[in-house]
Amino acid sequence: MTVSAIALTAGEPAGIGPDLCLLLAREPCAHERVVIADPDLLAERAHQLGLAIELQAYDPTRPPAAQQAGQLSVLPVPLAAGCQPGKLNPANARYVLETLRLGGQGCIDGQFAAVVTAPVHKGVINDAGVPFSGHTEFFADQTGTEQVVMMLACPGLRVALATTHLPLREVADAITPQALERVIRILHDDLRSKFGIAAPRILVCGLNPHAGEGGHLGREEIDIIIPLLERLRDEGMQLDGPLPADTLFTPKHLDQADAVLAMYHDQGLPVLKHKGFGQAVNVTLGLPIIRTSVDHGTALDLAATGQVDVGSLKVALHTAISMIEARGRQ
Amino acid sequence: MTVSAIALTAGEPAGIGPDLCLLLAREPCAHERVVIADPDLLAERAHQLGLAIELQAYDPTRPPAAQQAGQLSVLPVPLAAGCQPGKLNPANARYVLETLRLGGQGCIDGQFAAVVTAPVHKGVINDAGVPFSGHTEFFADQTGTEQVVMMLACPGLRVALATTHLPLREVADAITPQALERVIRILHDDLRSKFGIAAPRILVCGLNPHAGEGGHLGREEIDIIIPLLERLRDEGMQLDGPLPADTLFTPKHLDQADAVLAMYHDQGLPVLKHKGFGQAVNVTLGLPIIRTSVDHGTALDLAATGQVDVGSLKVALHTAISMIEARGRQ
Repeated sequence: MTVSAIALTAGEPAGIGPDLCLLLAREPCAHERVVIADPDLLAERAHQLGLAIELQAYDPTRPPAAQQAGQLSVLPVPLAAGCQPGKLNPANARYVLETLRLGGQGCIDGQFAAVVTAPVHKGVINDAGVPFSGHTEFFADQTGTEQVVMMLACPGLRVALATTHLPLREVADAITPQALERVIRILHDDLRSKFGIAAPRILVCGLNPHAGEGGHLGREEIDIIIPLLERLRDEGMQLDGPLPADTLFTPKHLDQADAVLAMYHDQGLPVLKHKGFGQAVNVTLGLPIIRTSVDHGTALDLAATGQVDVGSLKVALHTAISMIEARGRQ
Repeated sequence: MTVSAIALTAGEPAGIGPDLCLLLAREPCAHERVVIADPDLLAERAHQLGLAIELQAYDPTRPPAAQQAGQLSVLPVPLAAGCQPGKLNPANARYVLETLRLGGQGCIDGQFAAVVTAPVHKGVINDAGVPFSGHTEFFADQTGTEQVVMMLACPGLRVALATTHLPLREVADAITPQALERVIRILHDDLRSKFGIAAPRILVCGLNPHAGEGGHLGREEIDIIIPLLERLRDEGMQLDGPLPADTLFTPKHLDQADAVLAMYHDQGLPVLKHKGFGQAVNVTLGLPIIRTSVDHGTALDLAATGQVDVGSLKVALHTAISMIEARGRQ
């Protein structure tokens, strides 16, 4: 197996991101984890947490090396201002963005095989006068990607979203044949190319309750979703649906499927985060690079306390590694 | 403990309802289960399933008696036409409605302590020329109840719905302060009076993703939900929210709560049916009678095969018994 370098952005310095990167290092890794952060911040946080972590300067000229428990490489980016755990400081917003930029650019350049992101705080970046709507949009811009698809995954379940952060009253109009086709193609292609699933089986939710119940509870299934799925099935895609979302997440359906496509945020994510509590990971599909992320926020009140669960970042790293390996087998 | 008579409507005769009632009788019961169905249908289905069930004619003049394993009482209603498992026959639609009528009326009269319903088939009843939109509406009409609330429950979770069978694009406009207040009052009152929870704690979902994220993803939380919850909290209700639906169904929140109020069908039911697979029950709140139901359909293809899971009807009966006991303690 080829050993890769994997970028790990530590995210908001006042949040739990640095803690999670350090906690992750308690395990060995078959690849080289390269934390992009201020090394003094990491050292101080390790001290606060009572963790003995060996922080080595990342050397891009050397081949990546597997790491033992307690080892991390660091690609240094200096903080702009001092950091107190739990206290947001807009002065460090550009520091956070620079860590993301280096992570994404390293993937584009082929130096990193993937970028795994700890949480950032959108509000403080915006407060610093920088327009920023999230990691996903950042990496889409950086890689010149027109459309991406948000997918959350946990052991045993993957849920992709046809629409994401829209007011509920705008969802129905956003489900157009064109938009939905782009999402399904990205999901299908990435399950093949990034997850190594030769012939992905996708369960597609209806938009309406009971998937519209034959038109009695809405017509989008009949007018938009069913004709589109039929057309894509003619190309050979395995698409099951539109199915009622309330009965889809049961073994009868899930056991046969590689992913679920929900039409909107709260149709798909409550069950994913319930099932995958502490074990869920956010994967951005459609990018030319591999990017995974935790599914939670900065938890400012828990920074430097040691009271954090590293589960989501661990699954994010392992998912990125699986994706790197699947891509390597293509 | 008082022994009660509990009505059990066997539902669509060509579906799995009769099977479920018979399978349920394999266990003893501290109360008298009174199946409302055609006794010949039950005897034939028992024969087809290889079950030895003692079917006794229900005698309303005798005090209810606990039942041993294998015992069921029957309140007879004759089928209008022969019944072949799996084959719907509109000629039996009025038979089905008569079983419901007797179950509901027996509760109104105080003869039955609750009515537990096996699945009916709406389509075949409508095909027979009888307007029928479901059990819930039937019992609401029969008891002169203006508004009811649909709640699904499984071990460890209860989810009530602010809106039910509406096209998704109509949901946002249906969340008015008046409608939402009626739903919350019914949920709160019934958790007290029918579930014996003195001071219910209710988690309320936002309508929009991330509960609107401070107005960035929709304003219904700010304009409608938050002011209403504040007003009801002033009355002493314990209402937590509006909370983002995707993070609400995690132990941090659920461990503190007696019920979740979802704003719409596919926000709340996917996680309930995922968690409660085969163990979920539908409870109609707001009625003057106790009514519980299975959470699934008639499964025509499984009738008389013995390949059915009686879990949901069992939980429906046990939930009804808990509710009878809670009411008895008032």
